Amino acid sequence: MSDTGVTVKKNDDFSEWYVEVVLKAGLADYAPVKGCMIIREDAYAIWEKIQEIFNKKIKATGHRNVYFPMFIPEGFLKREAEHFAGFTPEVAWITMGGETPLEEKLAVRPTSETVICATFSKWIRSWRDLPLKINQWCNIVRWETKATRLFLRTREFLWQEGHTAHARSEEAEAEVTYALNEYKDIVENYLAIPVLSGVKTESEKFAGALYTTALEAMMPDGKALQMGTSHNLGQNFAKVFDIKYVGEDKMDHHVWQTSWGLSTRVIGALIMVHGDDKGMVIPPKVAPIQVVIVPIPFKDAEPAMIVAKAKEIAGKLSANGFSVVLDEREEYTPGWKFNQWELKGVPVRIEIGPRDLKKGQVVMVRRDSGLKQPVKEDDVPEAAERLLREIQDNLFAKAKALLQEQTSTVQSYDEFKKVICDKGGFLRAAWCGSADCEAKIKDETGATVRVRPFQKEEATTGCVYCGRKATEMVYFARAY
Amino acid sequence: MSDTGVTVKKNDDFSEWYVEVVLKAGLADYAPVKGCMIIREDAYAIWEKIQEIFNKKIKATGHRNVYFPMFIPEGFLKREAEHFAGFTPEVAWITMGGETPLEEKLAVRPTSETVICATFSKWIRSWRDLPLKINQWCNIVRWETKATRLFLRTREFLWQEGHTAHARSEEAEAEVTYALNEYKDIVENYLAIPVLSGVKTESEKFAGALYTTALEAMMPDGKALQMGTSHNLGQNFAKVFDIKYVGEDKMDHHVWQTSWGLSTRVIGALIMVHGDDKGMVIPPKVAPIQVVIVPIPFKDAEPAMIVAKAKEIAGKLSANGFSVVLDEREEYTPGWKFNQWELKGVPVRIEIGPRDLKKGQVVMVRRDSGLKQPVKEDDVPEAAERLLREIQDNLFAKAKALLQEQTSTVQSYDEFKKVICDKGGFLRAAWCGSADCEAKIKDETGATVRVRPFQKEEATTGCVYCGRKATEMVYFARAY
Repeated sequence: MSDTGVTVKKNDDFSEWYVEVVLKAGLADYAPVKGCMIIREDAYAIWEKIQEIFNKKIKATGHRNVYFPMFIPEGFLKREAEHFAGFTPEVAWITMGGETPLEEKLAVRPTSETVICATFSKWIRSWRDLPLKINQWCNIVRWETKATRLFLRTREFLWQEGHTAHARSEEAEAEVTYALNEYKDIVENYLAIPVLSGVKTESEKFAGALYTTALEAMMPDGKALQMGTSHNLGQNFAKVFDIKYVGEDKMDHHVWQTSWGLSTRVIGALIMVHGDDKGMVIPPKVAPIQVVIVPIPFKDAEPAMIVAKAKEIAGKLSANGFSVVLDEREEYTPGWKFNQWELKGVPVRIEIGPRDLKKGQVVMVRRDSGLKQPVKEDDVPEAAERLLREIQDNLFAKAKALLQEQTSTVQSYDEFKKVICDKGGFLRAAWCGSADCEAKIKDETGATVRVRPFQKEEATTGCVYCGRKATEMVYFARAY
Repeated sequence: MSDTGVTVKKNDDFSEWYVEVVLKAGLADYAPVKGCMIIREDAYAIWEKIQEIFNKKIKATGHRNVYFPMFIPEGFLKREAEHFAGFTPEVAWITMGGETPLEEKLAVRPTSETVICATFSKWIRSWRDLPLKINQWCNIVRWETKATRLFLRTREFLWQEGHTAHARSEEAEAEVTYALNEYKDIVENYLAIPVLSGVKTESEKFAGALYTTALEAMMPDGKALQMGTSHNLGQNFAKVFDIKYVGEDKMDHHVWQTSWGLSTRVIGALIMVHGDDKGMVIPPKVAPIQVVIVPIPFKDAEPAMIVAKAKEIAGKLSANGFSVVLDEREEYTPGWKFNQWELKGVPVRIEIGPRDLKKGQVVMVRRDSGLKQPVKEDDVPEAAERLLREIQDNLFAKAKALLQEQTSTVQSYDEFKKVICDKGGFLRAAWCGSADCEAKIKDETGATVRVRPFQKEEATTGCVYCGRKATEMVYFARAY
């Protein structure tokens, strides 16, 4: 193990392992300012991949990117009372511009509904202006007081927030579903992380929304992580901010709105779910580098010929659309390089030594399983294609199996308490729908309802807390 | 002229014309919070083009994107005294997190040298870690007290900032030149805006830098606009933030640093330089929509066939890599659409009416000159290619001619004062190099030295202010 290797095992101390992987793989770093993080090169490149994929999706469906200012006057935040109550405890406030105290203090956006709604009320006049579908990529500030966890809990993070206005309620509903489905596609089919999806309870919904839908993933330590939320705002904000349009019927109507967001937290999930004792493992579809080539020169052999061959293969892979790096640095040994690239999670490594050169082959190594196989030179692009697909599928299958293993159906509150302590994970349990039971369970166990599944699952017992008639099975968990 | 048209002429009231074009073309809007702007769909799409072009350039030369937090503790800003003095009057300060006053107030980044240097001192250990070349795309806050000018002067704007550290002084120098040249390529060859390039004087350089290089463009109202700056930081920050590496010689050395930035201000320049009495004109290479197709149905003719043909042509253009929109909205007339797309500055319009259909042709209209020409259906992709190239070249040539016309060589201070008042533009004049003369000229005329050309131009007179021996010709102007 090189000096850059991971020293803590994932199963021994998950939390320590996570921090070590994040720091040593160069994914993030603590910032000089408390509670903030630096998103480093490799993680930012994954974020750029996510941006590219998501932009393509939403632009194809008529959404357009914009940029709204990050400062929100206090008076704006206050206009939707529930929204203000929900966000104000964690707002960072600007009170001085230069040497001058401000007349009204300004919030740094914890989310942008208020400033966007105030603007929508100017932009929307007629039914012809609808639907209005915009999105922005930006930084967000929520003044966390608990300890920082890189990617998962920091005072500043990056996200995209979509905001739409529609003429009819059903269109807003369809938009909420649309956005959540796009998130699900990205999270499951690109990040290779299986999720539960469903509706949030009243107490867990977005402050000011009619209802919130969400994706929830399970981390290896038994805690859930929210992976994207999509809100139906109904006409709550439209009424407060007076967003009206003249319909084809010549009458005034309030619009129906949605908002939805996905943040850099998902990179934390990616690391936790796929990483191993050697470091990060990046699913091929979002890997900034998919294949790394390490020449293994021996002094008796012909190092120049090996490097030349490596270059030829790198060129062939590039020409076939793979993202490939040839690591020909001379100041490091091949062994050091293997560890380094494993730590960074590059899905496929290609080794070329003197024996390979003679045989007209290379050795291809999978990052997920460590399996090595000789591959004839001419077959390298095809093999890369196949291996990357297999790795993508395997990572998802492994994560899916873990999710299943971490999901327990519990019949009683005693069982609930035992499972949440011993094992964690998702607890599928009957719930009567009362906020009171939900609050007591949270107080006593730390678990909250993560989702009420879209496909209602019939209750198999009475409410897991009060024993009264339950309306459905829901998924509880402790969460990040 | 439709109700969405521009009512003020560019030559009548430049300032009013600018605001009207920006607002009506949907490029930007005033934000609910004072001094801030909303970057709207069409302008943000241009910014995304610039990001795409610039990312490709800098990634190809080994730079990597990252994200640093926007909060900078006051103590950090203070460490480089000149830097602090330069930026502190326009810093927005966070003093409260939630309900709690902060122990140390936090600056919202006016630029990120301090937080990045503090981190470089952790990341850089050995010569193997150099050069370190990173970049970030982010929001920046400078608390302007003068009136807002959309894109040009707002309290928040977007930019990229590159930050690099090198083992040797010459490498830093080369990097400064590299970045400025890439800016010049973007500004001249994509945005079609000719610039002067050179070095800033001591009084105009970046606070804390050894020297600053910059691009300066001339606006139609005779005021200069800075289009990108690239700074050689020398070892100033390295010494203050203790950024050292162990060289191959096993000795400690301070690194040499650069930083460079390009902001959303350039979109303001784009509008001012190329826009006309009909609205925006977007250079084809950065146009989010390059070609718009407007079918012209007549009720006696076959509207369905015209739309079908328009779709066929749109498909052919897309397949050839053009960005094309078919405007088949039925609630607007063709005439309304012509005005709308001219206002938005789409470079080429294609019209298809019944007569065209019969003749197997379309009419192609250039946004820059208004010239119309019939083109045979089969020749459309080729004609689009040619027209777009011609428009790109023509916009640059026109802007170049304007720049030349707006540059005056002045022999005396009387002439200087007369030209700056009557005409504005760049004043090429001899300067003795004294900061005192520079300051007096600024006080008395509002003009500053915009650049000292890289290719030193021999003085043809004594210093335009004091008459003493001058060392070079420099370019003065009033500036945005």
